[in-house]
Amino acid sequence: MALLVQKFGGTSVGSIERIEAVAERVIQARQRGHQVVVVVSAMAGETNRLLGLAKQIDAVPTQRELDVLLSTGEQVTIALLAMALNKRGYQATSLTGEQLGIRTDTVFNNATITEVETEVVTELLERDHIVVVAGFQGRDSQNNITTLGRGGSDTTAVAIAGALAADECQIFTDVDGVYTTDPRLVSEAARLSTIHFDDMTAMARHGAKVLQLQSVEYAEQHQVPLRVLSSFAEGEGTLVDFSTVSSHGAAGVAVKGRQALYRVAQPLEKVEQQLGLLGVDAWCYGDSQQATYPATYIVAADDELARLNVILEKTELTQPSVAILTLVGEGIEGDSTQVAASLTEKGMRVYQQKSTARCVSLLINGQHLQLAVEHIHKKFVVEPESLDNRPLLAVS
Amino acid sequence: MALLVQKFGGTSVGSIERIEAVAERVIQARQRGHQVVVVVSAMAGETNRLLGLAKQIDAVPTQRELDVLLSTGEQVTIALLAMALNKRGYQATSLTGEQLGIRTDTVFNNATITEVETEVVTELLERDHIVVVAGFQGRDSQNNITTLGRGGSDTTAVAIAGALAADECQIFTDVDGVYTTDPRLVSEAARLSTIHFDDMTAMARHGAKVLQLQSVEYAEQHQVPLRVLSSFAEGEGTLVDFSTVSSHGAAGVAVKGRQALYRVAQPLEKVEQQLGLLGVDAWCYGDSQQATYPATYIVAADDELARLNVILEKTELTQPSVAILTLVGEGIEGDSTQVAASLTEKGMRVYQQKSTARCVSLLINGQHLQLAVEHIHKKFVVEPESLDNRPLLAVS
Repeated sequence: MALLVQKFGGTSVGSIERIEAVAERVIQARQRGHQVVVVVSAMAGETNRLLGLAKQIDAVPTQRELDVLLSTGEQVTIALLAMALNKRGYQATSLTGEQLGIRTDTVFNNATITEVETEVVTELLERDHIVVVAGFQGRDSQNNITTLGRGGSDTTAVAIAGALAADECQIFTDVDGVYTTDPRLVSEAARLSTIHFDDMTAMARHGAKVLQLQSVEYAEQHQVPLRVLSSFAEGEGTLVDFSTVSSHGAAGVAVKGRQALYRVAQPLEKVEQQLGLLGVDAWCYGDSQQATYPATYIVAADDELARLNVILEKTELTQPSVAILTLVGEGIEGDSTQVAASLTEKGMRVYQQKSTARCVSLLINGQHLQLAVEHIHKKFVVEPESLDNRPLLAVS
Repeated sequence: MALLVQKFGGTSVGSIERIEAVAERVIQARQRGHQVVVVVSAMAGETNRLLGLAKQIDAVPTQRELDVLLSTGEQVTIALLAMALNKRGYQATSLTGEQLGIRTDTVFNNATITEVETEVVTELLERDHIVVVAGFQGRDSQNNITTLGRGGSDTTAVAIAGALAADECQIFTDVDGVYTTDPRLVSEAARLSTIHFDDMTAMARHGAKVLQLQSVEYAEQHQVPLRVLSSFAEGEGTLVDFSTVSSHGAAGVAVKGRQALYRVAQPLEKVEQQLGLLGVDAWCYGDSQQATYPATYIVAADDELARLNVILEKTELTQPSVAILTLVGEGIEGDSTQVAASLTEKGMRVYQQKSTARCVSLLINGQHLQLAVEHIHKKFVVEPESLDNRPLLAVS
């Protein structure tokens, strides 16, 4: 018997039919003898509906009250899923963030979990109940309702799994696992059966959307094995844990498309500091052509010009379509020259390259995106013998 | 400066525009220097929408989970109203039943308030906040979400007013006060400026819908003056308190239409006991024609035959349309013969009559309803000199 925390997102609970399908899925795990805690999001569309009501009253609604409003979305889902489980003869009890005891700081709309109480949920599990928990929400020390911001339900699931020392935290999503690269771009992309936390963190940080960065980091920190599964299809999915890497190549290629290159006549340090304050995640590098009057290039989403200009006056768009490819794998950072060269050899320009732990990132022309990902993926993930200067890792 | 508790029902907060109008109404009271606690219901239609979702899953949804679901309706309203007040420059804080500290028993879907904590709301009022509270909901001793059943938001408002020793509990509704009888039936019906708690209780018990019986009883018990006001129009409304009656006649005529007469071949005591178990509120009387084989007549809503037959087999419908008129006023119970006679003189048959404290109830043919109410209302409320055997009460 294992203790599983299963998380289903908004699309997975987007209609009554899908909530019933989730109930069946949960019951499968129960029938295999497992204890189950289910974490759910608001039904797809519900958060936007509520936000629409708020915006009719105030373009910038009070943050505290927005959390009171939005947290009802998950509360509706937990009630409906618990009903669906009860209807099928299974004892199930829903808990709001407050009822379970999810404590957060007071950053409304983007709170961080500070503590997860285990008493209520443990007592229910001991009485053989399936526990259905509202994701995305908690309470601060003053008993104000808070919400966690993007990917909040994943974070809730991982935090509960950590607090309960669960055997696995299963994230059900619309894909059937973590892929070596975006399968919509590269048909050769393959599902990984396992991936190391450090590689998953790197993939998430550099554009892979299957898991939220924060929840992967939290899971690693609390040593909670994560499994990514499809809500709609059977399968083993991808296990994210600390196992030895099972491939001798790189783990995968993360992609950030829809980026643009901006330029501002200010020194790099100042630009990085300002962007940090604005919360913009951007790759910046100095313009080496301008020794006397320092200037900085900024790679950011291709619709960020207006926002950049708020704090960095006279920012200019210099390239409307660029993309960042990041090859992720243990020790790969030593091969950046070789990785970049593999594209230039094919006539694709690499504007900039950067190595960080387990990562080589390349800034390229957006029009070359698909060709470049296909090539890097084939050469370093599928046929990694080309990485001739690296020791081969053991194949499990 | 007075402390007011204002309650707005589902129709009053049924759209964003109406929520904005409620905000303006609340601000009026605030501008007059009053402290205000606002209690709101779910937006009109929302409870039915949620119930519809639940019924798609289970025709008889788990009662606990139904309360988790339905309580989101009021939570949406409090957030939106607090936003609307904030937007207008007023400090306002929303509180769910749990956050305020509304304690109830564990009768899901029909809970009773056992305690109202005052600490949180008092602290907010002292900081000059308008407090916006979710009606209809509370928590039991195990921290389960409960809802209060019909008229629950009125009860919440009255309970909070009682706990805070508020100066007035103002119930905003779609009519502008308590009328001497149903104005849709009788054009002569007049708004009362004041009515005694005991008369209001009798009116509510016998069919007046403007206030829920439980909340009137609760207000009387906790000595909370109630005021019924229109959400949509200015005016003084009707004050319900312990003042001397301001009219020398009866207070009014309560009406229960859409009733039917049923008959079952069982003794009166047994029938009353069984109906009590089913929670059916019905007027019962023995069939005096049947000395040997006792039978009982039951007056109940005209669509109750199926439900009656569940516990009282072979109940028969004997009269598909009857109505109950109840004349309410201090000492009126001594005049039942005179009241009944006033109808029979006009050729209207009185099937049965009954006197209880401050009440004379008459069972009549449903087709005579309007004529009978008009006549009784004119004779005993508008021109009460006809009550010649009663001492006249002081006119205020």
